[in-house]
Amino acid sequence: MLKVGLLGAGRIGQVHAVNIAGNARSTLVAVSDVFEASAQSLGATHGCEVRSTEDILNDPSIDAVLIATSTDTHSGLIEAATAAGKAVLCEKPVDLSLERAKACLDATASSGKPVMIGFNRRFDPSFATLRGALAAGEVGKAELLSLTSFDPAPPPVSYIKVSGGLFRDMMIHDFDMANFLMGDRPVTVRAVGSSIVDPEIGAAGDVDTAVVTMTYADGRIAVIKNSRRAVYGYDQRIELLGSEGLLQAQNMLENTVVKSTTAGVVSAKPTYFFLERYMPAYAAEWEAFVSAALDGTPMPVTLEDGIAALAMAEAATHSFQTGQAVDVSL
Amino acid sequence: MLKVGLLGAGRIGQVHAVNIAGNARSTLVAVSDVFEASAQSLGATHGCEVRSTEDILNDPSIDAVLIATSTDTHSGLIEAATAAGKAVLCEKPVDLSLERAKACLDATASSGKPVMIGFNRRFDPSFATLRGALAAGEVGKAELLSLTSFDPAPPPVSYIKVSGGLFRDMMIHDFDMANFLMGDRPVTVRAVGSSIVDPEIGAAGDVDTAVVTMTYADGRIAVIKNSRRAVYGYDQRIELLGSEGLLQAQNMLENTVVKSTTAGVVSAKPTYFFLERYMPAYAAEWEAFVSAALDGTPMPVTLEDGIAALAMAEAATHSFQTGQAVDVSL
Amino acid sequence: MLKVGLLGAGRIGQVHAVNIAGNARSTLVAVSDVFEASAQSLGATHGCEVRSTEDILNDPSIDAVLIATSTDTHSGLIEAATAAGKAVLCEKPVDLSLERAKACLDATASSGKPVMIGFNRRFDPSFATLRGALAAGEVGKAELLSLTSFDPAPPPVSYIKVSGGLFRDMMIHDFDMANFLMGDRPVTVRAVGSSIVDPEIGAAGDVDTAVVTMTYADGRIAVIKNSRRAVYGYDQRIELLGSEGLLQAQNMLENTVVKSTTAGVVSAKPTYFFLERYMPAYAAEWEAFVSAALDGTPMPVTLEDGIAALAMAEAATHSFQTGQAVDVSL
Amino acid sequence: MLKVGLLGAGRIGQVHAVNIAGNARSTLVAVSDVFEASAQSLGATHGCEVRSTEDILNDPSIDAVLIATSTDTHSGLIEAATAAGKAVLCEKPVDLSLERAKACLDATASSGKPVMIGFNRRFDPSFATLRGALAAGEVGKAELLSLTSFDPAPPPVSYIKVSGGLFRDMMIHDFDMANFLMGDRPVTVRAVGSSIVDPEIGAAGDVDTAVVTMTYADGRIAVIKNSRRAVYGYDQRIELLGSEGLLQAQNMLENTVVKSTTAGVVSAKPTYFFLERYMPAYAAEWEAFVSAALDGTPMPVTLEDGIAALAMAEAATHSFQTGQAVDVSL
Repeated sequence: MLKVGLLGAGRIGQVHAVNIAGNARSTLVAVSDVFEASAQSLGATHGCEVRSTEDILNDPSIDAVLIATSTDTHSGLIEAATAAGKAVLCEKPVDLSLERAKACLDATASSGKPVMIGFNRRFDPSFATLRGALAAGEVGKAELLSLTSFDPAPPPVSYIKVSGGLFRDMMIHDFDMANFLMGDRPVTVRAVGSSIVDPEIGAAGDVDTAVVTMTYADGRIAVIKNSRRAVYGYDQRIELLGSEGLLQAQNMLENTVVKSTTAGVVSAKPTYFFLERYMPAYAAEWEAFVSAALDGTPMPVTLEDGIAALAMAEAATHSFQTGQAVDVSL
Repeated sequence: MLKVGLLGAGRIGQVHAVNIAGNARSTLVAVSDVFEASAQSLGATHGCEVRSTEDILNDPSIDAVLIATSTDTHSGLIEAATAAGKAVLCEKPVDLSLERAKACLDATASSGKPVMIGFNRRFDPSFATLRGALAAGEVGKAELLSLTSFDPAPPPVSYIKVSGGLFRDMMIHDFDMANFLMGDRPVTVRAVGSSIVDPEIGAAGDVDTAVVTMTYADGRIAVIKNSRRAVYGYDQRIELLGSEGLLQAQNMLENTVVKSTTAGVVSAKPTYFFLERYMPAYAAEWEAFVSAALDGTPMPVTLEDGIAALAMAEAATHSFQTGQAVDVSL
Repeated sequence: MLKVGLLGAGRIGQVHAVNIAGNARSTLVAVSDVFEASAQSLGATHGCEVRSTEDILNDPSIDAVLIATSTDTHSGLIEAATAAGKAVLCEKPVDLSLERAKACLDATASSGKPVMIGFNRRFDPSFATLRGALAAGEVGKAELLSLTSFDPAPPPVSYIKVSGGLFRDMMIHDFDMANFLMGDRPVTVRAVGSSIVDPEIGAAGDVDTAVVTMTYADGRIAVIKNSRRAVYGYDQRIELLGSEGLLQAQNMLENTVVKSTTAGVVSAKPTYFFLERYMPAYAAEWEAFVSAALDGTPMPVTLEDGIAALAMAEAATHSFQTGQAVDVSL
Repeated sequence: MLKVGLLGAGRIGQVHAVNIAGNARSTLVAVSDVFEASAQSLGATHGCEVRSTEDILNDPSIDAVLIATSTDTHSGLIEAATAAGKAVLCEKPVDLSLERAKACLDATASSGKPVMIGFNRRFDPSFATLRGALAAGEVGKAELLSLTSFDPAPPPVSYIKVSGGLFRDMMIHDFDMANFLMGDRPVTVRAVGSSIVDPEIGAAGDVDTAVVTMTYADGRIAVIKNSRRAVYGYDQRIELLGSEGLLQAQNMLENTVVKSTTAGVVSAKPTYFFLERYMPAYAAEWEAFVSAALDGTPMPVTLEDGIAALAMAEAATHSFQTGQAVDVSL
């Protein structure tokens, strides 16, 4: 049984709490949050103690911590937790600064404690099925990958300003997915973007619509499309052309009802909320972490994976700003 | 080259004229119609002569006739045309009277001339593909067949009154399709129906919505659903459950555009007009007739097939009227 | 908070236990089962007491019982539980005997305690959405209803023998769904069936493939298709033709991956297992029961509903056996 | 009635001949081809004269010519035909050389005779429907366009060598489609590509897999994906994200049959051959040309359109070769 301390009781922390409590091999021992009320509420729901982060890290009976705090605290908490001997599952991204993230990697390497980064989409049943089919050679050798990730609606501009920008905040999931599916890192990154959804986003120095193309040493190509607004729902699709066929992972729909009238044939929309879309993925992610932590097997998503995605986000940001292709082969 | 006389220049006659003219192995020589203007118009479009039916039948240079006249003339024209030595393709149904149709069969049998009944749906590419998959054993042995045939809108009540009723006029296509797919005739027929779409249809002694179930000697079951009104278009589907799977033939849509908005995900409707839906089927039907007529091979749909479907329509009408199952095993 | 005793710790009892425990307004207090080991196992998983059924019924602190025992015990337990002042949720069917079920209704009526019958499919999100669209008039007035329910594989013949037959055991869900959607009871029932999937099932006096047609006083028609075997998965679909359109509820698929190769375009199969298919339905069903029990509102599915479905199953069985239509209008 | 001379009797010339002959307002008078046998064969099929190109151009009774010869002759024939007073429909591309195409535009401008370039995809019913929906504001304002064009199999390397390269030969259709849908020209073009399908194509200096991103002055973005090989068929899709929704044009499938077995749910593949896919588009294209030529209305696709697409192909080629974004705003 893995005894777990949860750092952060916000929206995503609450999702993790359900999975920690619902998993037969883990138990939620304590929670901390800078907002006392949030921690109290979560603690009451799950019957766990409310403590300070320091207390949790110092408690030798706690085996693992899940870091679901604000991004700027991730690196520091990863370092502190591994130093305290905990296994760590940390929400993405590792940090908004690639330098800082690399320093975190160096600092934790010596601890020997396993760190997993929460790229939940790797655990989405459909995406995992697609990857399995690819790995099994069902469409031959991969040639051209397309990732579509559209959010239903943009976040407040106040969030945009501290987010690190679309490439680090939103597209980082797609960079990791590309790495996950292609099994290699790209050699060039080209980004274009605009703030066509909301000029305020542009005024804040960010984009809300972007396309990144990446080339690989062996000739493969990947394209990522992001938009902060798809009014019909959370649009999350993968398409991979291989030498012997095409694999697609399509959207999950709200229900299976189809209505045919003089106005056309109407199906349900994609699920609107990312938590609804990825709820099974979060549960599977936690299951994978627990197994690795208890059984001593390698973490399925490493700190290095987090840094790789961050490096690509940084390259994309640079490419967008300069208008030039960025060589990421080194 | 098959020299063809066309009897009937109405809507369906015009469809056939296009196919006769467009087929590399047939040529349209002459057309007749009780409405002189219709014949003249068709003749002008296709550059063929306008003659009387008698003239056409008496012309020894004409090899075949296509009968696209009103239903009450079908049997007589089949008899006259075969007696005159023509190969015949006659629109369904053979006759509204089963007795009369059987007499027609007797009369033509002695002529030795081939007669094909125009059950066009057998030649629909998707339905033919479904039958091929079934015959190839792709879903094992057939167990349960469902046919859905909904017209977009009911015909005028004046038409209903002379149509012979829904079972003979509309469902006869489905009876033939059942025979085509099951490769056997049923042993019992049960029909229910109502005039829920238009009470005027009920007042005229007919139904506009009906379900027929049929059982087969070996335990197979077939269900046919008909409605005179599906406002979203011409709804023509087949579903066959076999011991190793399910085959479905779905509707043809007007186009492939999909629109996703806050209102849902909207696809195109099924094609609305039966000629649009079955245009490729009519062309393939004619091709099959020409091949059989020129090459001396058996007609792919026989007068016996027309009579079998008619007998089932008669049984269904009887079942509906009496509320009893009708034994058609004899 | 609703304090609940669970009677029956088998497969379906375990599903209910998860929902009872997971619902914020209910708590699982005790479980009983004729197989002590089953009760112990469930009790350990959920941290609840293992008691005798008698104990549970006699405990005044328990507000409600969920009856998930074998069918032959349902009526008796409903009577005993209501007499003991409990709110009751009982798995379908009420009884295999219509007489016995009616007696149960009489016996419980005097208790004034609410009884809900577990027709879980009413709570399936897609089916509920379809019903809502119908009720909202989105396709006008209902005219023709089709229900398709195919199990992935037949149960053992030993089960068939005590099941009450396909109409009572399997199609009863569809009878209830027809009542739920049509908002009225039919006036005639016609059934055909065969044992084409497995002759052993026929030898046991039952069918494995069946079609029932039902007519309504206002001219509406319903068709139910059942098969004990659809090798591709649990096939559960609804199709309703209305005066202004068609509503369909399609199958839930295992995932959203589509693979296009030279062999065709392959999508995922329907979910295979009924618990996977209907898991959200069971949770919503329990939620509805808890609300009604705690808030004192009417049960969303009543004992009368259970009896109505049973009466239709009995009529279908009779129709199949006699070959005649059965009048159920009285 | 438009009297038409057809220049070129190859594969695409034969398609046009069928449409010229089948259109009620045009008649095929004469055909020419450098291969006498091809011209003779086409002439025999359609009952038209076989002449030299010079003869056709000099015949004042001929109103229009359709140029379906090899690409290197297009510009010269457009010039000669307009000088001879003919209306012209010329297959794409205008020329492989942008300079030469511009000279052709200058030369023909003085003739005052209308020239249409055969970008057939504009006339595809689904693509035209998508454009109509966009123009009608059904998804608000366009933001992000994605075009997917995959051929089923690469052409011979001998063809590749004289084709002008993927961007001019294949992607030119997509450049025109982008112009057609976006209603504006891009300001930057970025191209990546590789010869991952066939290294021989790379050895010939071309690519077989490519992605182009284009930005527009108002912030819109377009992405084009091309591959010379999609083994499952001719993959031709459009996807356009707007401020109020998403429009997609999906593939046409070979038929509507769906097969569900233990192996999955299998649908038909996209049509494999481009002529099958775009047959209705070619007919509609011809209809549009005839209308414009006879009625004196502007050509729906102009020589300027042909040059615009060619300029984008040239920019993409340059971007691919240099690795740099190309400014096409001037």
